[in-house]
Amino acid sequence: MEIKEKIRQLKNDSGSHSPSISTLLHEIPELDVAIDACFLSNPYATDLFMQYLNEDLIETNKLRDVLEFYPPQVADVRKHISQATGLSPENIFVGNGAVEVIQAIMHRFVKDSVCIILPTFSSYYEFASPDTQVFHYHLDKNDDFELDVEKFIKFIVDNKIKNAVLINPNNPNGGYMSVEELNSLIGELSHLDNLIIDESFIHFAYENIELFQISSEDHVKSNSNVCIVKSMSKDFGVAGIRCGYGVMGTDKVNTLLSNGFLWNVSGLANYFFKVYASADFQAAYDVVRKKYIMNTLMFLTELGQLKTVKTYPSKANFALVEILDGKSSFDFTMQLLIDHGVYVRDCDDKVGLDGEFIRVASRTFEENLKIIAAIKSIE
Amino acid sequence: MEIKEKIRQLKNDSGSHSPSISTLLHEIPELDVAIDACFLSNPYATDLFMQYLNEDLIETNKLRDVLEFYPPQVADVRKHISQATGLSPENIFVGNGAVEVIQAIMHRFVKDSVCIILPTFSSYYEFASPDTQVFHYHLDKNDDFELDVEKFIKFIVDNKIKNAVLINPNNPNGGYMSVEELNSLIGELSHLDNLIIDESFIHFAYENIELFQISSEDHVKSNSNVCIVKSMSKDFGVAGIRCGYGVMGTDKVNTLLSNGFLWNVSGLANYFFKVYASADFQAAYDVVRKKYIMNTLMFLTELGQLKTVKTYPSKANFALVEILDGKSSFDFTMQLLIDHGVYVRDCDDKVGLDGEFIRVASRTFEENLKIIAAIKSIE
Repeated sequence: MEIKEKIRQLKNDSGSHSPSISTLLHEIPELDVAIDACFLSNPYATDLFMQYLNEDLIETNKLRDVLEFYPPQVADVRKHISQATGLSPENIFVGNGAVEVIQAIMHRFVKDSVCIILPTFSSYYEFASPDTQVFHYHLDKNDDFELDVEKFIKFIVDNKIKNAVLINPNNPNGGYMSVEELNSLIGELSHLDNLIIDESFIHFAYENIELFQISSEDHVKSNSNVCIVKSMSKDFGVAGIRCGYGVMGTDKVNTLLSNGFLWNVSGLANYFFKVYASADFQAAYDVVRKKYIMNTLMFLTELGQLKTVKTYPSKANFALVEILDGKSSFDFTMQLLIDHGVYVRDCDDKVGLDGEFIRVASRTFEENLKIIAAIKSIE
Repeated sequence: MEIKEKIRQLKNDSGSHSPSISTLLHEIPELDVAIDACFLSNPYATDLFMQYLNEDLIETNKLRDVLEFYPPQVADVRKHISQATGLSPENIFVGNGAVEVIQAIMHRFVKDSVCIILPTFSSYYEFASPDTQVFHYHLDKNDDFELDVEKFIKFIVDNKIKNAVLINPNNPNGGYMSVEELNSLIGELSHLDNLIIDESFIHFAYENIELFQISSEDHVKSNSNVCIVKSMSKDFGVAGIRCGYGVMGTDKVNTLLSNGFLWNVSGLANYFFKVYASADFQAAYDVVRKKYIMNTLMFLTELGQLKTVKTYPSKANFALVEILDGKSSFDFTMQLLIDHGVYVRDCDDKVGLDGEFIRVASRTFEENLKIIAAIKSIE
């Protein structure tokens, strides 16, 4: 009971985000967390990156250089990303995590009005300038939170909204807009000042059995209003390093860099992007990406079979799960955490969710089995 | 000759900052840099921090946790800094390096007009909003670049300037304003909207032989217009980690945090601040701080004896050095670099410096001997 109260307090202190696992363990040392299913990342990608880091920096004793000296200015980092993606460096804005890219776009370019889908990642409306009118487009539980592209476009046009945000797949439900639908959306919204597409979870989505990597980054070349937000935290499992980037028109990149964002990439983030640019890492990464997608598909299928919860359709590495047995999401989350050491995201603070919801991340194969067993055991 | 041309190109690409050592080595692998006397940090403090890091994260295999998972939100980090400094967390704004603090203050709070001393760290005028009028107060070479506090105040009052920036000790000359003078300055400029005091190099300054740590952070409690900028990169020798903070009025901190700056601290920066908060680290740090100050004093004294250059008075960990023999600062810098492997800061792009200047950092005792020998050998 005491632990529950402490966690409730920590949750209140964290605003519209859940307390991180490190905060939980720091504040409540008696807590025994075995699995962090709140954290949305590919653990196999972390394994892979750690192999590179151990070989390059730890075994060679070069970690000190990365921590002691100034990292290069962002121009160098843009070259690495350009090499990895084939994009022009002029279209790349490097951020201290995707959240800095979101902040920069929302503060500097989004004016007048913006359309934000609900439920969503809260920073998009929290970082909007106070004088920007936020229009919310609500996804309907009865439609399984699926986005109807035509209705969405009509909503934007009817309300004369100047900017729109799309997270694809969406967080927290994992709903995915196909390449074909997205192409049509971009065409129909070319009159907007900014169309922001957040691809934080796109590496976990797939169009067909080949599981090729999807990205809409190339649209920036022909659509100057498109801004793509890329987080490395989820796909590559390196949230602690804080690295992300945005792909956008050259004029926007130049505006941002003309008076700021000079040394916003740490030595380790620069090292990550160097690794990211190498062909052998990219090849090895694609193997663990596909392994994790298949692992996640199995996990989501299993979740879907459970009778006490409803799992909504997702093409991301997590699922939005509704609790059907009358328990509150907080009590359900606490039971999972305290009795089973499984930490999931209680969604009771998510705006636009009517009901009792948790968000459950896919982790390793072995961990996923334990998460399923833990959810099953709760009556 | 070819190396010289490549470096000239890199310098041009770096704007008003010099290319970092990692950029130099990446672009010109044939270069043999033995000593980075461009980089303004205490190497003994890096040694100390690396001891902690090796023990806490490398030997225990906990580095992965710091890189994989989301760092805590800034509220936790503010608690660490509060513990280390005795300041209230409400007055602390954590930045991804001091440069993010500078950017936030210049973009969000500095309006109308600002007084910036020349020569200076260029980000202060580069990050000013385009609609802010920048007044430059010029330090005079004939006064050894010493700041006359009364004249400085008169300049601000006469021009009805609304904001002012003071770097203490100043970069690039190392001129220091004493605690007594600063107290009087703060009193006389209490009508300003913001008085920004950048203490990036304050740990290397001293008032008397006791070498106690100086800070004006406490002024924030009674002067709501004072903003203190703290860089950890120089004092603690951890520029690659990117950690800094600002001390300012609660209303300013709340304004900044109300729509941004949520996860701008990496896992390693959070780890640094945890170490920084511990009493045993603070005690050990003060020993290496004093050792480095004495080391630097000896170095600056030696530099002052050389006949081919003039060394200006400094209470920072570097000196502004004028080349008297007719050589350009670029040629002098190149000779030091190519013939002796010593990289110093060519100041030919520093606005407000009339003449041929380099800035030379104090490094370890052994490195300083080599720097002196290299400068001596140039005819």
